[in-house]
Amino acid sequence: MDEFDWIDLLKPLASSAEARGLRDDAAIVPSRPEFDLVISKDAIVEGVHFLPDDPLDLVARKLLRVNLSDIAAKGAEAWGYLLAIAWPGARSDADRRAFVDGLRTDQASYGLTLLGGDTVSTPGPLVASVTMLGWVEAGRAVGRAGARVGDGLWVTGPIGEGWLGLKAARGEIASDRLAVRYRLPKPRIDLAVVIRRLATASADVSDGLLADASRIADASGVRARVDLDTVPLSPEGLAWGDRLALATGGDDYEVVFTAPPGAAPDWATRIGEIVEGHGLTVLADGRPVSTSSLGWRHR
Amino acid sequence: MDEFDWIDLLKPLASSAEARGLRDDAAIVPSRPEFDLVISKDAIVEGVHFLPDDPLDLVARKLLRVNLSDIAAKGAEAWGYLLAIAWPGARSDADRRAFVDGLRTDQASYGLTLLGGDTVSTPGPLVASVTMLGWVEAGRAVGRAGARVGDGLWVTGPIGEGWLGLKAARGEIASDRLAVRYRLPKPRIDLAVVIRRLATASADVSDGLLADASRIADASGVRARVDLDTVPLSPEGLAWGDRLALATGGDDYEVVFTAPPGAAPDWATRIGEIVEGHGLTVLADGRPVSTSSLGWRHR
Repeated sequence: MDEFDWIDLLKPLASSAEARGLRDDAAIVPSRPEFDLVISKDAIVEGVHFLPDDPLDLVARKLLRVNLSDIAAKGAEAWGYLLAIAWPGARSDADRRAFVDGLRTDQASYGLTLLGGDTVSTPGPLVASVTMLGWVEAGRAVGRAGARVGDGLWVTGPIGEGWLGLKAARGEIASDRLAVRYRLPKPRIDLAVVIRRLATASADVSDGLLADASRIADASGVRARVDLDTVPLSPEGLAWGDRLALATGGDDYEVVFTAPPGAAPDWATRIGEIVEGHGLTVLADGRPVSTSSLGWRHR
Repeated sequence: MDEFDWIDLLKPLASSAEARGLRDDAAIVPSRPEFDLVISKDAIVEGVHFLPDDPLDLVARKLLRVNLSDIAAKGAEAWGYLLAIAWPGARSDADRRAFVDGLRTDQASYGLTLLGGDTVSTPGPLVASVTMLGWVEAGRAVGRAGARVGDGLWVTGPIGEGWLGLKAARGEIASDRLAVRYRLPKPRIDLAVVIRRLATASADVSDGLLADASRIADASGVRARVDLDTVPLSPEGLAWGDRLALATGGDDYEVVFTAPPGAAPDWATRIGEIVEGHGLTVLADGRPVSTSSLGWRHR
């Protein structure tokens, strides 16, 4: 398969006017009055973010989904993306078709269109990056910097599923559900509208609940206090028991956000609050956990 | 250098409001009334697009410049970019600082701002991709698909400089000027305004003059006729003599465009015209050159 065959494979994914049939060097996106464009860019590397023998349709879908998760956490609606991919020479035509199959499947599921990008060859592992574009009403995107003292700290959905899912994908624990959960996270696009209406600050849980909560606190110039005992877990998470591991594991693609005092969203779980200071306090059994054990640096 | 040190290095490059101090997962770009956003995305791979011992400040600058070239050829003005980079573990802190030095230098030269992106590690070669954003008056972006029968075919600046420059960079020919030209191409941002006003179709010369002219013809549903004897060359190109090699070499980052009959821009050279049909006719000494020798496929 040469460059032209590959582009022919991609063209059906690029049916929007903005993509210009992938015949141009650039996508042209008309401004949308009263809306802001929200842009995320995430990259994945074979051997780091996925295993060499992982099915490439699932790899492509996860790549779209981790970017969709970023857009949704900002309260925005994704609509299109650009793809840069570095293909190793040893990858077969079937591999390339599988990758495109994955893109096609999730484009249909999430209402996306391919807008452009770049394809290159590499002597190393497969590397791909997606630039995802979404729209949000002007001035309404929810950043990390809006948390205020007194706000509640909330999270959607069970935490630790990504970390347990990686163990399942590696065969270290037996759970088909968790292995699928790891390979195909479900970005919370269903919550973008309510996050936009309610949240003062928001981020997706990609690096770990505690790390992502800490970054909201840092960006907002406040301190986050998290009560580990209130972090929502699945039955498998409850059985695992080590809440600190689950809350630092990452790859959950739920949303951690802050909301004004008095807000009580029934689609999220309150796990703490925002207080004066900076950094993060983590409580377990009512006692502070030493932050030096949390495995990342504060800034 | 860990992820936080690296982001600290990048933060001074991200001073615009849209970048949110690189503290967020996404950049927020307000719509600009009466303007379209033009988005290009180009990737480079160590060992393919640059040599492992190339100075990384120059690699970073070339990465920005090849994207700037795409934006300028559309008649648009670049203003910001996102960067995804996969760093090999063996790269030193000095390498990373050199890369950022290069970004800083060309951000200042071209009035750009870093908007966001992603940094990952890789067991393979360095891979980086830039998503470049530019603005153009609404509806005025110049694509590949606008060439009409009777239009003239034009090119800015000497052709073959990239191909000769690669030979110089490899030490196969002696020319400091050409080696610099290869490592640091000069995107024709100076011509964006006149291209927007004059050109019916336009592309930058990245894959080779003949390939890029052919793609304009394909996208426009017409045939391009190129007279090789009229292609502008530098003194080194004239001395080299093989015009077909120079016109297929690529990496020139000049602009090939079509303009209505009668147009006579003094900042470009007429190299042919648009005729009925499809594909490409190449003339040398007044006789057609067999297209099977051109080294790329037509569509």
